[in-house]
Amino acid sequence: MEDSRLISTQEISQHNSPEDCWLVIDDGVWDCTSFINDHPGGPALILRYAGRDATKEYSEIHTPSTVRNSLSPECFKGNLDRSTIDSTWLQSPTPSNPAQAVPDGEKPPLHTVINLYDFEDISRRTSSPKTYAFTSTASTDCWTRDQNIAMLRRIWFRPRVLRDVKAVDPASEILGVRTRMPVFICPTGLTKMMHPGAEKAMGRAAEGEGIAQIISTNSSFPAEEILNEAPGVPLMFQLYVNKERKKTEELLAKLNTLNVRAIFLTVDAAGRGKRESDERLRVDEVNPVTGKKGGGLTKIAGSAFDQGVTWDDIKWIRSLTKLPLILKGIMTASDAKLAMEHKVDGVMLSNHGGRNLDFTPPSILILLEMHRQCPEIFDQMEVYIDGGFRRGVDILKALCLGAKAVGLGRPFLFALNYGEEGVRKAVDILREEMESAMKLLGITDLSQVHPGLVNTSDVDHLVPSTLDHPYAKWRPKARL
Amino acid sequence: MEDSRLISTQEISQHNSPEDCWLVIDDGVWDCTSFINDHPGGPALILRYAGRDATKEYSEIHTPSTVRNSLSPECFKGNLDRSTIDSTWLQSPTPSNPAQAVPDGEKPPLHTVINLYDFEDISRRTSSPKTYAFTSTASTDCWTRDQNIAMLRRIWFRPRVLRDVKAVDPASEILGVRTRMPVFICPTGLTKMMHPGAEKAMGRAAEGEGIAQIISTNSSFPAEEILNEAPGVPLMFQLYVNKERKKTEELLAKLNTLNVRAIFLTVDAAGRGKRESDERLRVDEVNPVTGKKGGGLTKIAGSAFDQGVTWDDIKWIRSLTKLPLILKGIMTASDAKLAMEHKVDGVMLSNHGGRNLDFTPPSILILLEMHRQCPEIFDQMEVYIDGGFRRGVDILKALCLGAKAVGLGRPFLFALNYGEEGVRKAVDILREEMESAMKLLGITDLSQVHPGLVNTSDVDHLVPSTLDHPYAKWRPKARL
Amino acid sequence: MEDSRLISTQEISQHNSPEDCWLVIDDGVWDCTSFINDHPGGPALILRYAGRDATKEYSEIHTPSTVRNSLSPECFKGNLDRSTIDSTWLQSPTPSNPAQAVPDGEKPPLHTVINLYDFEDISRRTSSPKTYAFTSTASTDCWTRDQNIAMLRRIWFRPRVLRDVKAVDPASEILGVRTRMPVFICPTGLTKMMHPGAEKAMGRAAEGEGIAQIISTNSSFPAEEILNEAPGVPLMFQLYVNKERKKTEELLAKLNTLNVRAIFLTVDAAGRGKRESDERLRVDEVNPVTGKKGGGLTKIAGSAFDQGVTWDDIKWIRSLTKLPLILKGIMTASDAKLAMEHKVDGVMLSNHGGRNLDFTPPSILILLEMHRQCPEIFDQMEVYIDGGFRRGVDILKALCLGAKAVGLGRPFLFALNYGEEGVRKAVDILREEMESAMKLLGITDLSQVHPGLVNTSDVDHLVPSTLDHPYAKWRPKARL
Amino acid sequence: MEDSRLISTQEISQHNSPEDCWLVIDDGVWDCTSFINDHPGGPALILRYAGRDATKEYSEIHTPSTVRNSLSPECFKGNLDRSTIDSTWLQSPTPSNPAQAVPDGEKPPLHTVINLYDFEDISRRTSSPKTYAFTSTASTDCWTRDQNIAMLRRIWFRPRVLRDVKAVDPASEILGVRTRMPVFICPTGLTKMMHPGAEKAMGRAAEGEGIAQIISTNSSFPAEEILNEAPGVPLMFQLYVNKERKKTEELLAKLNTLNVRAIFLTVDAAGRGKRESDERLRVDEVNPVTGKKGGGLTKIAGSAFDQGVTWDDIKWIRSLTKLPLILKGIMTASDAKLAMEHKVDGVMLSNHGGRNLDFTPPSILILLEMHRQCPEIFDQMEVYIDGGFRRGVDILKALCLGAKAVGLGRPFLFALNYGEEGVRKAVDILREEMESAMKLLGITDLSQVHPGLVNTSDVDHLVPSTLDHPYAKWRPKARL
Repeated sequence: MEDSRLISTQEISQHNSPEDCWLVIDDGVWDCTSFINDHPGGPALILRYAGRDATKEYSEIHTPSTVRNSLSPECFKGNLDRSTIDSTWLQSPTPSNPAQAVPDGEKPPLHTVINLYDFEDISRRTSSPKTYAFTSTASTDCWTRDQNIAMLRRIWFRPRVLRDVKAVDPASEILGVRTRMPVFICPTGLTKMMHPGAEKAMGRAAEGEGIAQIISTNSSFPAEEILNEAPGVPLMFQLYVNKERKKTEELLAKLNTLNVRAIFLTVDAAGRGKRESDERLRVDEVNPVTGKKGGGLTKIAGSAFDQGVTWDDIKWIRSLTKLPLILKGIMTASDAKLAMEHKVDGVMLSNHGGRNLDFTPPSILILLEMHRQCPEIFDQMEVYIDGGFRRGVDILKALCLGAKAVGLGRPFLFALNYGEEGVRKAVDILREEMESAMKLLGITDLSQVHPGLVNTSDVDHLVPSTLDHPYAKWRPKARL
Repeated sequence: MEDSRLISTQEISQHNSPEDCWLVIDDGVWDCTSFINDHPGGPALILRYAGRDATKEYSEIHTPSTVRNSLSPECFKGNLDRSTIDSTWLQSPTPSNPAQAVPDGEKPPLHTVINLYDFEDISRRTSSPKTYAFTSTASTDCWTRDQNIAMLRRIWFRPRVLRDVKAVDPASEILGVRTRMPVFICPTGLTKMMHPGAEKAMGRAAEGEGIAQIISTNSSFPAEEILNEAPGVPLMFQLYVNKERKKTEELLAKLNTLNVRAIFLTVDAAGRGKRESDERLRVDEVNPVTGKKGGGLTKIAGSAFDQGVTWDDIKWIRSLTKLPLILKGIMTASDAKLAMEHKVDGVMLSNHGGRNLDFTPPSILILLEMHRQCPEIFDQMEVYIDGGFRRGVDILKALCLGAKAVGLGRPFLFALNYGEEGVRKAVDILREEMESAMKLLGITDLSQVHPGLVNTSDVDHLVPSTLDHPYAKWRPKARL
Repeated sequence: MEDSRLISTQEISQHNSPEDCWLVIDDGVWDCTSFINDHPGGPALILRYAGRDATKEYSEIHTPSTVRNSLSPECFKGNLDRSTIDSTWLQSPTPSNPAQAVPDGEKPPLHTVINLYDFEDISRRTSSPKTYAFTSTASTDCWTRDQNIAMLRRIWFRPRVLRDVKAVDPASEILGVRTRMPVFICPTGLTKMMHPGAEKAMGRAAEGEGIAQIISTNSSFPAEEILNEAPGVPLMFQLYVNKERKKTEELLAKLNTLNVRAIFLTVDAAGRGKRESDERLRVDEVNPVTGKKGGGLTKIAGSAFDQGVTWDDIKWIRSLTKLPLILKGIMTASDAKLAMEHKVDGVMLSNHGGRNLDFTPPSILILLEMHRQCPEIFDQMEVYIDGGFRRGVDILKALCLGAKAVGLGRPFLFALNYGEEGVRKAVDILREEMESAMKLLGITDLSQVHPGLVNTSDVDHLVPSTLDHPYAKWRPKARL
Repeated sequence: MEDSRLISTQEISQHNSPEDCWLVIDDGVWDCTSFINDHPGGPALILRYAGRDATKEYSEIHTPSTVRNSLSPECFKGNLDRSTIDSTWLQSPTPSNPAQAVPDGEKPPLHTVINLYDFEDISRRTSSPKTYAFTSTASTDCWTRDQNIAMLRRIWFRPRVLRDVKAVDPASEILGVRTRMPVFICPTGLTKMMHPGAEKAMGRAAEGEGIAQIISTNSSFPAEEILNEAPGVPLMFQLYVNKERKKTEELLAKLNTLNVRAIFLTVDAAGRGKRESDERLRVDEVNPVTGKKGGGLTKIAGSAFDQGVTWDDIKWIRSLTKLPLILKGIMTASDAKLAMEHKVDGVMLSNHGGRNLDFTPPSILILLEMHRQCPEIFDQMEVYIDGGFRRGVDILKALCLGAKAVGLGRPFLFALNYGEEGVRKAVDILREEMESAMKLLGITDLSQVHPGLVNTSDVDHLVPSTLDHPYAKWRPKARL
């Protein structure tokens, strides 16, 4: 290369974009444009030096021959004319600093968030104590909340290799509605505490990212307002039956007029869980029943909701709407079978995020119990699940085990701390994690998932294979 | 609502009670009286603003339409007359502060206690070191004490949904005596160290809350004094046989004249456990046998109690009293079967709170062992249990597995730190936890419990299915 | 009692001994002599107030009627003559202080030690770093050392109740030699580092307490000197075969002339474990082979011992001595069977305290493996065990599973930090723990132990039932 | 010895070498030359006192008779002539200090490193943050990375005793190439970040120590330069197929001309894992696709490598080279069987160090899965493994279970922090650990390993015995 032409720093500096990117390495000038996206270390590292001298960082990592072996000879443009070096040339490029420490109580920039645990961590540090307590709390010892996550970690993959996975797509359908990913936002109460945009911001995010959204009977905004904001979102409605059944009839009548896609009837909340981190912040409130301070939220928290809803009421709800009906909060294979007998359109396996009854089964184990006791259900209705999902790999595990889609509640609420953009970021992270995991698992679309791709050996012994207790033959006579 | 009448702050302020409760929201005046108990966030939050302006807190959580959708139109009373706003109106309502930090060594107000662990924590911080050591201690490595709790946490629920659970009642019977909850206070020694009221305060609490009480042969007050204080308490008596059998005969003769309901003969204390946190506080005491300081409490702690009581002595006790006889401290299915053969009225599965022999089985596993080896017993006599119970859910698990009632020792002792009121609070917490859990489990009274409502898969492998060791065929010949 | 006589403080003060003990309670004077040993709280608490006023401490714990109910009427001596109270009377008795904090690096008084863990803790704080490192160290990751203890904790009792356990005795025999407890001191090297008395002090302690002692080929003192000091100790000898076999022949010839009871041939040390906490203290020593500093103790630590000893050599050793021969360091049922075929007198299940090969099986599991694979051995030869034993309950578990006696190495070495008295104290603690546990387990002598008294369910799945790997059918062809 | 001759300090001082080593003990002068290597405490301790007075350290450990019993009488040379003691004599020998504390950020001397964990610890403290992050990172929650190590620890030995293990040799063959130990250096990217010598230094170390080396397609130096430096190293090549297949053809053509022994085709990297500790350091880099900062390295990290390589491409690779072909990254027995059907020369069980898909099976479990499902493979092709190996015992476990050789990646990279000498030290440590473990396991060469020498009971339940999920019968119909 000794007879190559000399190139001035001024000329080199102009080739400083992704479309036209020159680098100086050991006084050689290289056109790296075609290589940017092939760089094993990623394009950003090259672009940081676009139109500049990259010798120092290059040499820390590569041997001099690497650039010659990686680029074709015509990419070599000549040698640096060292006589043209000036103070401008000598300035360092913007250094790549790790994310700056953020002052206490302030949210770090959204681009520094790299997974869904970050959102929870940031909310813990920056939301008001009562917002964080209400969002993170669960019933009594929080066993179910924590085991939702822990049990997912005890299920592993059995990945297959040498499949063509150049193109991967996690698109799916929920009740016939196409979504870009089999993920939905779970209904939550007091959403506005986290961010004034509440379900509106979530709806815009879901619409933009192509996932579904379920809103609560207790949503901060009514369905029609959310649909005004985000007309394209696949919106579903979580229903609590009101003690005054007439109110529920009116509500369903209204929903029938809106572009709502399904009704998720909550069946696991026929009582209120004792949520202690929340309760502890409110011990000084006066109990209006007793006139005294302290405790007892579980009992006194009034509820407009009917605790007497039974299987027979499904017929009544069916008479009020033609929308698909899903039972949310199924926790045993036995009740999944009853749901099938009652011809609902789907079940959502859920323990209410561990917020109601502690020591209910971790969600993913309910899915396994269905495989043990009633695998035929998977072909007859759609099965959804929520509880503990934080990662693309978590979602993929549930899909392999027959779930049609996966819901996330708290994580999207923590992401809502950043408004719509936070929720979009959360979806984006999940999609990236899923796509990476699908490739590495050896599949390209979700028609290819099946139980043989996961190893559940570490939890199989925890899954009941019978309706009754396996060895306790005793059943009590009437005991009163 | 523009043509509604204007209402003065003076008028609004008068509607400030649970019976008559107006709120101002966004300048609208609403009569919320009918809604107070339906408020999903609980009535207290509404009552804090009774007769006041709630706009600020309302807006943090709700959208403007919520109030219109939740209340009927006639609840709208008009608009706030802003010209009547004065300094009184502008005063904030009493803020809802989280419980104040309490100075070191002082008990926090009782109303801030929300579960039974709180009582232990407060005792650790506020009782004298020797009181706390004596109460919390257990034998050697405290394995059994800690596993009593841990094993309960390894048993889960299998809750059923869509049952009518509007009305729930945990009432039960113990030996034919009706109680409001299947719970009793276990006998404890040195009770007075915790509180001068000792068993008297406990008896009044048990009477008031409708649960049973067992007192120790070593109780701080004799049975007759407790019954004087709390004549309605279902009182039972824990018996140690005295080395001088005549004393036991006299004791039973006296009990026969009192309103005592049963005798619980302790069978797991034919020796004294080595309780190290207690022993460590006493190493400087001079051992009167050796004349030296240190150690050996286990051996030297004199005992008036007969270590030679055997199955044959049951006949003798039966000859002394007609009261029901329960064996307290059964730790194997084999001994439960012997108890049945000896026709006692019940057994109490107990390892003495782990205070005697460390590595005795966690109580709940003994219950499971009975299901494996002798399920017929549950229909022939009453089975009680104690050891590690701290939560309503714990109690419910044992009931599902066949226990007729559950005892708590240390937790009520720690609650006694607050006297009678503390013990009542403890019972109240347990009842609230039980009622909430029953609803969420899908049952309304205790005749509905059965083993199929719990999942014991995580501990089933720990439960012996035979009297002998399952694969160790060897039995020693005489070895001396 | 109003008409009782008044007694002066001077008179009361004279009844201040275990043989004649008066107490003042609420102005009543009581002769408690007959009750001292029956006091549930132990005699020391009474004796502290002998001849004094005990009202204050009594009232904290007892109700006024307790003393009347516990003592016969003739024990009441009269009332305190309050006019005789003077400054002497008002002085407090010596307070019962908890053990004083001890200055850094100083050993606390021996009487404050209450279990064998205390000895280790004290050695860690007061021995020289190299002494503690050498004693506590084990091979590489110390898995086996730690699991020796952990696996013992995973075995539980199945205690039986209502047995007459007034008199309990842990006496046993080892190879026909009567001992007061089935416990022996294991051989250790560099014993003198811990205390100059070394094996002499241990021998005196073993003699005094009636247990056996095994000394190492590497003992700090030769067998004859130890036997001079402690002629009554049941002394056994741990043998390493010397590379120069003649030296071993001379050694055995000498032992044949002494009152040595058995030879324990070590078979698990055909190499040296890599003991890192020890090695780390010596990295600056120059390796004389390489002339460099650092590492490699495992390889370079010269050994006089023959790494080529095989099963065939047992015949040779038998030709040199008539003493019983035990193989120390058996770690599989397969080798136990070979030992039986070679007609040795016993095996000692041991992994050298985890000091040689890490990930060798925890000792107690080897005992279980023998029950699975060769239970007949227990009737044909004596089986000993060491590794992880720290408590009376540990020893009892091994005895239930067929061990004839249990060895402890490190714990006695840590106790030797206090010389002979420390070792005696350690034995005393173990005996007290064993006696307490035997009573509570429902047995009175060691002929009554059997596997049905323990529950090994938590570890059974870890015990191989075959010589070969249970499902790995492959065996390599020659691989080189 | 009283009539022995007196020897001056000047004379004694001259016997101060391994070949001629005198010591003074209690005024006696002993020639210890013949005993140096037999000293149970190692030769270094003796040599430190060669030609000097060792009484003080000797007495701390030994009794006066030890030296007489250990040495033959002719080793006694006489008594110290105390009149010749001078200041030179009284100087202490160089003290044996434990390794000095090293200033923050500086590497401690290499001779203080005693195991492979030390190298990682030192790199964490002394490498640049990005070097350490890149090297230590793994995918998302790092479960697989950590479980690679944890599962190895759950496999134990079943050692056999009384075998002749005087001579032990861990030599082996890899693909017919003799190596001194069945260990190879795994391929790594960005190797130069750790040390400028990169693969050249590793190659020299591998050559010197007699192990194999695999270099990456992304190696810092090309194969020919490494072979120039270390012509004797058994060099193997890890292949990523380039998107432009022609480049791969050229690469293999070049390799065919070099002394490369095998091609390891990576099959577990058809996507890029999300490595968060790495990603977190780069969140401020601008994503050239989106033009925004943050995240998404997983997706945007361009790759020159073909994600569409399938089983059919094996034929194509075979057409380009005659070198043995091994598939690196097999994670199921099913794919191992496919590999055998495609007649490759071997498989390497690997999950890419947990860097690609989290929750892939820990490597050692894949080996066990092959025993369950396809043990015949072990006799038909060579099976290698990497992932979590840090100790000689780890390697030995894998060999017992059928692995022909074991690879280490991160540990050698951390050792490279010290250049060639560091890598040699790492190999030396592993060899010493293996030799020690082989002796203690009762084997002398690697033809003697077999599965019966390990106990895998603690993990057996985690190993799938079927291709499909064992009880989930459901397989999805097409789901889109």
